[in-house]
Amino acid sequence: MPAPLSVPLPVPLFAKIAIIGLGLIGSSIAHAARRGGLAGEIAGHDASAAVIETARTLGFCDTLHDDLALAVREADLVILCAPVGAYKAIAQAAAPHLKPGAILSDVGSVKGAVMRDVGPLVPPGVRFIPAHPIAGTEFSGPEAGFATLFDGRWAILTPPPGADAQAVDRLKAFWQGLGSQVDVMDAAHHDLVLAITSHLPHLIAYNIVGTAHDLEAVTEGEVIKYSASGFRDFTRIAASDPTMWRDVFLNNREAVLEVLGRFNEDLSILQRAVREGDGQTLFDTFSRTRAIRRAIIEMGQESPAPNFGRDLKE
Amino acid sequence: MPAPLSVPLPVPLFAKIAIIGLGLIGSSIAHAARRGGLAGEIAGHDASAAVIETARTLGFCDTLHDDLALAVREADLVILCAPVGAYKAIAQAAAPHLKPGAILSDVGSVKGAVMRDVGPLVPPGVRFIPAHPIAGTEFSGPEAGFATLFDGRWAILTPPPGADAQAVDRLKAFWQGLGSQVDVMDAAHHDLVLAITSHLPHLIAYNIVGTAHDLEAVTEGEVIKYSASGFRDFTRIAASDPTMWRDVFLNNREAVLEVLGRFNEDLSILQRAVREGDGQTLFDTFSRTRAIRRAIIEMGQESPAPNFGRDLKE
Repeated sequence: MPAPLSVPLPVPLFAKIAIIGLGLIGSSIAHAARRGGLAGEIAGHDASAAVIETARTLGFCDTLHDDLALAVREADLVILCAPVGAYKAIAQAAAPHLKPGAILSDVGSVKGAVMRDVGPLVPPGVRFIPAHPIAGTEFSGPEAGFATLFDGRWAILTPPPGADAQAVDRLKAFWQGLGSQVDVMDAAHHDLVLAITSHLPHLIAYNIVGTAHDLEAVTEGEVIKYSASGFRDFTRIAASDPTMWRDVFLNNREAVLEVLGRFNEDLSILQRAVREGDGQTLFDTFSRTRAIRRAIIEMGQESPAPNFGRDLKE
Repeated sequence: MPAPLSVPLPVPLFAKIAIIGLGLIGSSIAHAARRGGLAGEIAGHDASAAVIETARTLGFCDTLHDDLALAVREADLVILCAPVGAYKAIAQAAAPHLKPGAILSDVGSVKGAVMRDVGPLVPPGVRFIPAHPIAGTEFSGPEAGFATLFDGRWAILTPPPGADAQAVDRLKAFWQGLGSQVDVMDAAHHDLVLAITSHLPHLIAYNIVGTAHDLEAVTEGEVIKYSASGFRDFTRIAASDPTMWRDVFLNNREAVLEVLGRFNEDLSILQRAVREGDGQTLFDTFSRTRAIRRAIIEMGQESPAPNFGRDLKE
């Protein structure tokens, strides 16, 4: 009989984990941690009573707590999965109740601001190791989570200078247990990399959907009908959670403005080429981009299927 | 026994069609026309001998011709499927050989320029009815075509003022036979609608992929690894055929510059909101876009599946 591809660890990596914020990412961590047998107890907390009620119905946590203090008490790993703008208040409320030796982590899309806001509030003896899983869908909320969200995706850890190496290794093992590949880098570099790979694309996508919405000469019905010609690729990421994305842009201002400045410079060159009918510049620009696309597919971060990888008849 | 969902027409809609240009769209028309039994003979021509050879191997045309004149001779429907920039030369060469009463059409992404370039070359008695199927993939060439490319998508016809109504109806029936839904509008409106739904998204996507490529502080490997965070949605359309897209921007300059101007205005507002930390403007902008996304999914022009509708493990 062939050996199974993966087996649960005989002893869970953590006796208790606490997930603070039970939206798409928090609930997916719960699902995946259970699948991987990574925690003896999965405790959950959310600021919204309705979200806790939904989580109770769905059953992805072992224990659910209206009281943040009860959720984090005795937890070996506490993961903040709320919008980044809420971290400071959560960290302040949770700090007195954190277990000495616990790992405090998060899943926020910006890391410099998290270090700045949460770092000073971390009690001595608690190991603070921010993290960011590069995974998501266009859906939000506790119903949106699923166990395979992180499979094959990357998670980036940004331990502060001098962080405890053993704690970093345990958090790394946790994310690997959730299905991720793990990278480690400093927070400033993370924020620049994500500014170009994620934050700028979202800003641009939100913007173009807004522009289309406001055009008087083209109806919204026309935009929707003919969206398969390119537009729909932007609506996908422009449907992401508004609160989360507001907080991203409020908390990664410098890096976003830097890459946006570069984007605008480059766009001016293309705009001039269109105005002047400079076909060579257009052709050269349009020819450079296929190699990146091929590499993304080869890295397993995308599907090369026809019709843009989507089954349009469903 | 239940009736089959569709049956080939007892008599083909056209005795002979000629497809000029055997890339993704031309070859897909051939595949779909054969599937639908729409033509007694599917003739093909391409400027490239290598493409003709590939088409011969794949067998999607009944007859293949190095000589354009032979391809269009006696054809009841001639469809230009080459890049728009090549139309004028093709139309000049084909005009003396077109059958009186034939329909001349095309599949170009711009329609005003096609009317301007090709219209004056159309011999009396030939009915010129430009068309544009809103369908595509990121792949090019005769191997990329497939019979279901147009199923459920929209095709737009832009008959010139005073066009023969019967010819419009026959072309409409042809596109419906290929699997499309059909709309009719004037060329100028088509060009504005496509400028916002297709041309601007492509320009933006090409641009952001170029910006990412040129950033010194972020390696291309990092961009590729973390592309699932948003960037990859842009690489998909930025991998489209460079020659085709150069010709689109050279031939729809006014409408593209108009929507690009609007896009830039809107982006300036978002840029200022980021710089000034104006969370309300960001949140309001990000909240408006979900409704459009939902409508696109409801219209069947997109899949709502998790992980952005893609099976990432394949």
